[in-house]
Amino acid sequence: MIASLTGGVVEGDGELTLTGFGKIEEAGEGQITFIANPKYAHFIHTTRASAVLVSTGFDAGGPVRPVLIKVADPYSALAELLTAFERMKPRPQGIEQPSHIADTAEVADGVYIGAFSYIGEGAKIGPGASIYPQCYVGAGCVVGEGTVLRPGVKVYEGCVIGARCILHSGTVIGADGFGFAPKGEIYEKIPQIGNVVIEDDVEIGANTCIDRATFGHTVIGAGTKLDNLIQVAHNVEIGRNNVFAAQTGVAGSTHIGDSNRVGGQCGFAGHIRVGNDNEFGAQSGIPNSVGDRQRLIGYPAVDARRFAKTQVYLKRLEQLFAAKGK
Amino acid sequence: MIASLTGGVVEGDGELTLTGFGKIEEAGEGQITFIANPKYAHFIHTTRASAVLVSTGFDAGGPVRPVLIKVADPYSALAELLTAFERMKPRPQGIEQPSHIADTAEVADGVYIGAFSYIGEGAKIGPGASIYPQCYVGAGCVVGEGTVLRPGVKVYEGCVIGARCILHSGTVIGADGFGFAPKGEIYEKIPQIGNVVIEDDVEIGANTCIDRATFGHTVIGAGTKLDNLIQVAHNVEIGRNNVFAAQTGVAGSTHIGDSNRVGGQCGFAGHIRVGNDNEFGAQSGIPNSVGDRQRLIGYPAVDARRFAKTQVYLKRLEQLFAAKGK
Amino acid sequence: MIASLTGGVVEGDGELTLTGFGKIEEAGEGQITFIANPKYAHFIHTTRASAVLVSTGFDAGGPVRPVLIKVADPYSALAELLTAFERMKPRPQGIEQPSHIADTAEVADGVYIGAFSYIGEGAKIGPGASIYPQCYVGAGCVVGEGTVLRPGVKVYEGCVIGARCILHSGTVIGADGFGFAPKGEIYEKIPQIGNVVIEDDVEIGANTCIDRATFGHTVIGAGTKLDNLIQVAHNVEIGRNNVFAAQTGVAGSTHIGDSNRVGGQCGFAGHIRVGNDNEFGAQSGIPNSVGDRQRLIGYPAVDARRFAKTQVYLKRLEQLFAAKGK
Repeated sequence: MIASLTGGVVEGDGELTLTGFGKIEEAGEGQITFIANPKYAHFIHTTRASAVLVSTGFDAGGPVRPVLIKVADPYSALAELLTAFERMKPRPQGIEQPSHIADTAEVADGVYIGAFSYIGEGAKIGPGASIYPQCYVGAGCVVGEGTVLRPGVKVYEGCVIGARCILHSGTVIGADGFGFAPKGEIYEKIPQIGNVVIEDDVEIGANTCIDRATFGHTVIGAGTKLDNLIQVAHNVEIGRNNVFAAQTGVAGSTHIGDSNRVGGQCGFAGHIRVGNDNEFGAQSGIPNSVGDRQRLIGYPAVDARRFAKTQVYLKRLEQLFAAKGK
Repeated sequence: MIASLTGGVVEGDGELTLTGFGKIEEAGEGQITFIANPKYAHFIHTTRASAVLVSTGFDAGGPVRPVLIKVADPYSALAELLTAFERMKPRPQGIEQPSHIADTAEVADGVYIGAFSYIGEGAKIGPGASIYPQCYVGAGCVVGEGTVLRPGVKVYEGCVIGARCILHSGTVIGADGFGFAPKGEIYEKIPQIGNVVIEDDVEIGANTCIDRATFGHTVIGAGTKLDNLIQVAHNVEIGRNNVFAAQTGVAGSTHIGDSNRVGGQCGFAGHIRVGNDNEFGAQSGIPNSVGDRQRLIGYPAVDARRFAKTQVYLKRLEQLFAAKGK
Repeated sequence: MIASLTGGVVEGDGELTLTGFGKIEEAGEGQITFIANPKYAHFIHTTRASAVLVSTGFDAGGPVRPVLIKVADPYSALAELLTAFERMKPRPQGIEQPSHIADTAEVADGVYIGAFSYIGEGAKIGPGASIYPQCYVGAGCVVGEGTVLRPGVKVYEGCVIGARCILHSGTVIGADGFGFAPKGEIYEKIPQIGNVVIEDDVEIGANTCIDRATFGHTVIGAGTKLDNLIQVAHNVEIGRNNVFAAQTGVAGSTHIGDSNRVGGQCGFAGHIRVGNDNEFGAQSGIPNSVGDRQRLIGYPAVDARRFAKTQVYLKRLEQLFAAKGK
């Protein structure tokens, strides 16, 4: 079955019964594991796993105890197997009490709404969506088909979430953007009357914040994945299939294209434009617009090779000043 | 009406009926927009908006289609208009069930308490305050007149929040300060018996944390605005009319004055003093006390002009070492 | 009583009745305070406190008004006193309604479960644990004896929390690790089927996120203290008696030993190993593995003395380039 799920070729006992998954150094009898990174290849000789997903070209250098399942991409095959495994688990169903569902809300078939969740006036919950306990879905929100809100997600009024999204606990969608007009010594609030639009197949980590637009929309494009504790300010637009690691922040009105890979704790300035297919090292500060296919790191972010050189030069500065005498 | 609200001078059809707001490049027929930044001035010729707030000295260089409303400060005028617009919206009212309100809590007139909110013993909720669903207001807390707690705000026992504040979802007020006494290899908890005091007209973003004092008070001064995911440690005192962008952190016992502007992801060391009217660039690290009216950036933060120079010198280091051979 | 609690020697009126605690510069009549840091020693002459915890060798240079209580470690003695004081306060008890406790959950004696909390199928809540309102404890979780979950903590299914832990509001334990397999242009979710194991005597600040493992366990070792807004990614293992200040992040699969002290806003790369007894300055970026007993700071982190020297050299660069003429 695994071979057919993954399209792999089995070397060894094809009738083996597998009971679970494990890391190669920890997996036990009856478990399946994988080798995606050559650094871990040597574990093939010591693992107690019963089966190992390896790449088509994998050569153990001799016979090994576990069954090998050769696939084009072991990590992707693992994802497919785990997904199949997850789908076998029962999914929560029905409306738990007490929950608050406004009379004018529309709740489609097959929806789970957990206890202590609150669905506001006119909100629409799509077919098969799962709203775990203690969530808040404000008036006029839309939650797409099959989307999952884990416990305690808060979505302010008027925000739109696409299909097959996953929002983790504590995430806040649509809080007011940070907009104030200075008036003498004080700051006057600019009401934020826009919303947040999250397209399909987006995953958003725990305690991440995506602010509503002043006008118009803050947008997270289809297929983009945001990790935990990320800040996305008002009127930011992020394109498709980006991955942002934890604790990164994007300041207001910045536009980010598609397929960018952003390390943890990065910061993007406001009102800039970032293209496609860029890679940003962890903790980078990006003050200006960026084109496409750059590899940047640092504060302020520079080309990754230049960053590495500068580190070397800083070490050599010491020698330089030492050679000059104090 | 708009002219009278903003004190502006109308150039064009004063009887226009407006239906909403939009960004200048997106606004449509019947909408009003604004130009505060000269960079956007050229849109005056292409916008489909029916009216535009511009500054008194604005010169379009010829006749334009939209009605112009000339005001001293377009951004501030916009704030006033949006605020007037927001005030027309109905506000939630009354006590939703189920909610938990302790017998000894005092709830004033005109208060909204959403479902699944919890008001502890002896807590006082001021007139017209709005406690959205799933909030926690601990024993002995005070919530001032007209203050708004958005869904899921948590306020630990004994904390005091002034009038006309807005606290966004997921914000935690009064969690224990991070205080431990090393005792051999282990750390012994120092109970944190102080509280948090938030003065009037403060706005606090989503998922921000303000810890209670060990003794005494952690204080957020009147008119200060904190963005999302900010950390304010125990015994910090922040003065009046500061603005802090997202993901900034302030370590324990630091005192910050008035009217400072702090970029995103900054970090202030503990036990330092910061004066008034300073500006801190994004991602700055501030290890030492700071006077008044400084413009600082970097890690560690230095004068902004020196920071810019250092960046230039770092680029020139490359040439220097290249010129020296290897 | 205080002398006996702290093992201290009283100089002055041993029969004094004390009513509370205060900072030395703020404490009033009837209150006790402490001097742990010599910087504050001069307050001994001006404090209005009635008693002061000081170290055994403390010399006021003459007679002083307050009673002195001489102890080996004033800060630790303070911790003990405050803890004794806290224990006198009544603790919430019983099961508040409405709450959701699954039929198959096991709730031990002396447990507090606050209103609007949700205890999933098969979860086990140990003796004397306190689950404040609006918490979520997923199916199959274990919460140890005497552990406290403050309002709004979310624990995903299958996670294990030891005894005497404190988890602050908004903390999320066991959200999915950030694991995706690229497949052409899109990212395919790797289901995260491991869990989080938190050992005994751990304290975790507000809005901190600890992700579940892909397989196996993400681990927080006994006695470790994590501050607010921290990110701990999947499969991270953190040892015993570490202290991490706020907003620090640890990327996936990194192992950290025992007794490390980590400043605020640090970032640890993924798949690295950190030994024991290290100290990391605030905002450090740690890209590579680290041994034991290092003192590191910077981005990327280097030895703290070298970091200080580099700062000096950067200042001298200016002179160097100035001397060379532009």
